[in-house]
Amino acid sequence: MDEDLLRYDMIVENALRGVVRTALDQVASLGLPDGHSFYITFMTQLPGVSIPDHMVAEYPEEMTIVLEHQFWDLTVSGDRFEVTLSFNRQHEHLSIPFSAVTSFADPSVHFGLKFEIADGADIAMVGQDEAALGELSIQEPHANNDASDENEGNGENETKEEDRAKMGEVVNLDTFRNK
Amino acid sequence: MDEDLLRYDMIVENALRGVVRTALDQVASLGLPDGHSFYITFMTQLPGVSIPDHMVAEYPEEMTIVLEHQFWDLTVSGDRFEVTLSFNRQHEHLSIPFSAVTSFADPSVHFGLKFEIADGADIAMVGQDEAALGELSIQEPHANNDASDENEGNGENETKEEDRAKMGEVVNLDTFRNK
Repeated sequence: MDEDLLRYDMIVENALRGVVRTALDQVASLGLPDGHSFYITFMTQLPGVSIPDHMVAEYPEEMTIVLEHQFWDLTVSGDRFEVTLSFNRQHEHLSIPFSAVTSFADPSVHFGLKFEIADGADIAMVGQDEAALGELSIQEPHANNDASDENEGNGENETKEEDRAKMGEVVNLDTFRNK
Repeated sequence: MDEDLLRYDMIVENALRGVVRTALDQVASLGLPDGHSFYITFMTQLPGVSIPDHMVAEYPEEMTIVLEHQFWDLTVSGDRFEVTLSFNRQHEHLSIPFSAVTSFADPSVHFGLKFEIADGADIAMVGQDEAALGELSIQEPHANNDASDENEGNGENETKEEDRAKMGEVVNLDTFRNK
């Protein structure tokens, strides 16, 4: 028998990656509604990930990109999305398979998904359930900008180690689900 | 602006209905693995639902079907699945759009999904998270058969009011999620 038959963890994970795809597709077609922002964390060295070498060097495991003020040429096709972002005043093109995404969050509406690449079995979901979200420590993404005097207000993509750690609080529901 | 843009509740609900689709598709192609069973609850009078009139009369709101011992001609196509089941020793053909499904459960692996037709915003998911499931009251489906002297062991579809109530315990995670 096929070992992958009725592997609900895999089926659900695949379905929820489709949520990331749909959200990006809506924004690619119709633009990002006011107030929304996408925090997308992905594994930088998985097969199919195409980003500049200096980014891989700086983020050898994961990096988080923010789609909010300035992003260009967002497209969704096949198994991946592509987007151009500004890093250190350079426009950089990224092509990222959905299979490399480890988390997706739109903090303004308290929505997040977290994927475990390793075994596919550990999927956390933050819905728009206010009772549930009341127990989470939500890190407002704009709070991080206060520490950035150089990039303040210019839409630079501000991926930093501390951002990644904080975003983990937004999307990781494991502690909540096990309560 | 499109009011449905980035409506994550709708996007996630749609994605999770895809889980029901994928599970049924796998079984339609490869058969139901030993030990698994599908409990599928659907609204009997939604547009697109095609079931015998006497079933609608008996279950004017919802009914739960069980795919376990005997089912035939399971197919998944377009927006719906179709299957032939035995009710009161009659073979009956059912055609059910995924949009009419209110819950799906495979109790043997403690997996369930519940959908709210009304507003689409209230989605509960039971993953294969043992810590979470430990707090749920899991109703073993076979326990219901003990009360059925007529149908015992013949694979009759045993949809009853009490089954529906009990299955609600398997798939309804609302109380858990709000803890």
